[in-house]
Amino acid sequence: MAKVAIDLKIIESARDIHSKIMRRQKPTMNMPVRSLGNVRYTPTVGYFQLGQGQKTRTLTVGTVKTFAQTLKMMSLSKELILADDMATKREAYYISKNWGQAAFTEQPESDTVMDDVEAMFGVNREQLRFVPEEKGGDVAGRLVVLDRDAKGRQLKIDCARFGSGSYSIPIDVEHLDFQSQAKFILAIETAGAFQRLLKYDYWDKTNCILISLGGVPTRACRRFIRRLSDKLRIPVYAFVDGDPYGICNIYRTLKVGSGNAAHLNQYFCVPQASYLGVTPQDIIDYKLPTHPLKQVDIKRAKDALKNDPFIKHHKPWQLAIQQMLDLGQRVEQQAFAKHGLEFVVKKYLPDKLKNPSKFLP
Amino acid sequence: MAKVAIDLKIIESARDIHSKIMRRQKPTMNMPVRSLGNVRYTPTVGYFQLGQGQKTRTLTVGTVKTFAQTLKMMSLSKELILADDMATKREAYYISKNWGQAAFTEQPESDTVMDDVEAMFGVNREQLRFVPEEKGGDVAGRLVVLDRDAKGRQLKIDCARFGSGSYSIPIDVEHLDFQSQAKFILAIETAGAFQRLLKYDYWDKTNCILISLGGVPTRACRRFIRRLSDKLRIPVYAFVDGDPYGICNIYRTLKVGSGNAAHLNQYFCVPQASYLGVTPQDIIDYKLPTHPLKQVDIKRAKDALKNDPFIKHHKPWQLAIQQMLDLGQRVEQQAFAKHGLEFVVKKYLPDKLKNPSKFLP
Repeated sequence: MAKVAIDLKIIESARDIHSKIMRRQKPTMNMPVRSLGNVRYTPTVGYFQLGQGQKTRTLTVGTVKTFAQTLKMMSLSKELILADDMATKREAYYISKNWGQAAFTEQPESDTVMDDVEAMFGVNREQLRFVPEEKGGDVAGRLVVLDRDAKGRQLKIDCARFGSGSYSIPIDVEHLDFQSQAKFILAIETAGAFQRLLKYDYWDKTNCILISLGGVPTRACRRFIRRLSDKLRIPVYAFVDGDPYGICNIYRTLKVGSGNAAHLNQYFCVPQASYLGVTPQDIIDYKLPTHPLKQVDIKRAKDALKNDPFIKHHKPWQLAIQQMLDLGQRVEQQAFAKHGLEFVVKKYLPDKLKNPSKFLP
Repeated sequence: MAKVAIDLKIIESARDIHSKIMRRQKPTMNMPVRSLGNVRYTPTVGYFQLGQGQKTRTLTVGTVKTFAQTLKMMSLSKELILADDMATKREAYYISKNWGQAAFTEQPESDTVMDDVEAMFGVNREQLRFVPEEKGGDVAGRLVVLDRDAKGRQLKIDCARFGSGSYSIPIDVEHLDFQSQAKFILAIETAGAFQRLLKYDYWDKTNCILISLGGVPTRACRRFIRRLSDKLRIPVYAFVDGDPYGICNIYRTLKVGSGNAAHLNQYFCVPQASYLGVTPQDIIDYKLPTHPLKQVDIKRAKDALKNDPFIKHHKPWQLAIQQMLDLGQRVEQQAFAKHGLEFVVKKYLPDKLKNPSKFLP
């Protein structure tokens, strides 16, 4: 959606409320219900979608403060768009301290209203010019990122020329463009494993783009990978720890999004991702050192089998998670070091990349 | 210390043990005691130093496993140096899985032995070729980082040309060199505040280098700032949240190091750092929105006044922390947004930078 369009949509929405008040009617705002109960998963769509559930916020004595806060948040968004500026979630909270009685007391309150506005207009927070606090991930490999400097001149950022360092993804990525002839994107859970592949020049040898997720990927990181893979039309392979957290939190969030932010998933998930490893079967095939599953792991795995629409849809995932529970073991992506530091780049990854069609979905 | 020297030191130490065994004597290893009780602070030195306390590890029936593990860890370090490779702490742990009965059961065990080896040889872990898991911080501004690609060709990484993105510091920084005419380094606690200064092109207007710490700075980030500031001979100003965590954890660790890793502080602290803000006095001078101190904040502040050798040495810090306790308030670095998003770059930072000599020590 273009910059002008959102701006106009906010103004239109405010005018509607204004005219209702002038006609002495009760103004209302409609927004989707944001919860796991209002979510559906269709594999052809590829991400958790919002259902039909709507909530209506009507101006009454009881809702007057939230109503005013929502309008002030919309107004702030409009100002940011016009000024070509942005505000972090925390900054938006502090700005509200000048809103008199509409000031927020705690940041979670302002975050909730921000989510409502976002869902109401059906656009993502970055398009409203609100950005999260956390930074994105790190990138190295066969990729040129196109950005602009403060004077508007184009910058070509060559991610093949960072040596042992890397390109750090900004917290807002909507304005970036990309040039690349890479064959695939490898999304890596830990900074340690990322650095290992960097050290062995892995992206140069295999013509790929390495992205360090740093745990559960931030919004900026997921959006970066999504836009990158859409633009380049290349697959995304996830290389994470073989435990319920790596599968059900890191990978699942990357691929189909999360339940409590379903209004965002269409922008922030990466449906074209597949799961390279580490799989429970790899523990056996590669004789990997493991750790026993903890209680929290077992609970998370059983919950996923029972309640997660993504896992429940994919038989191969149910089998893999059941295998993990049967083994009673979890495995980390650096466990390959047992066979020598080069094993992961000389044996494991080449083995796997011969058959990407066998990756878990 | 040169590459060859550490290598030879390891061999020499191993030969000594070997010859003792051949002569049927009990071999021993000496290493410093690593604890807050064995630390001293001298402001002219500028960081927490290890005291004289030593512990001796003698080969007996009870110590045979740890003794063997220490020798295997020294051997791994030697191999890594000769191969010009490195291993993360977690990789080193997994490599030990091939050491038969000397294998570690949990990673904290291997980390402890690694710390012992490090303290024994009086060098830092990176020189032994062991690197932490976590990545460093992010950098933008008037700085060219010199690194090499996998083929040994020099790379000039210009941190002024990354647009809204930035340079991500690698987990090992010993090999990097720097070129810059910048006047100072601004070390920033949060990614959000870093992005704000980037957005307003702050480094270009003030000729400085911006570094995002991302909370308590990692070893790599602290070492990067230290080497940078040593090489360029420019000051480091810390801009962090005005709360006991920002002062006593983030800033104190950056400047003088920490107690439980005192054998490292000579490499990883930044004695030339000073504290720009946010100070408790700023709350009053700039009418900033605050949050009440939590119980954990009060405890941390009182502990610092009573036990922290750094705080106890510096009267201005005692007054500032007492003022914070009297106000009963903490303040975040993004609180300036209350006065408008540009306030921090147009008013607060310029005000402060007129008198760096007034910064807290």
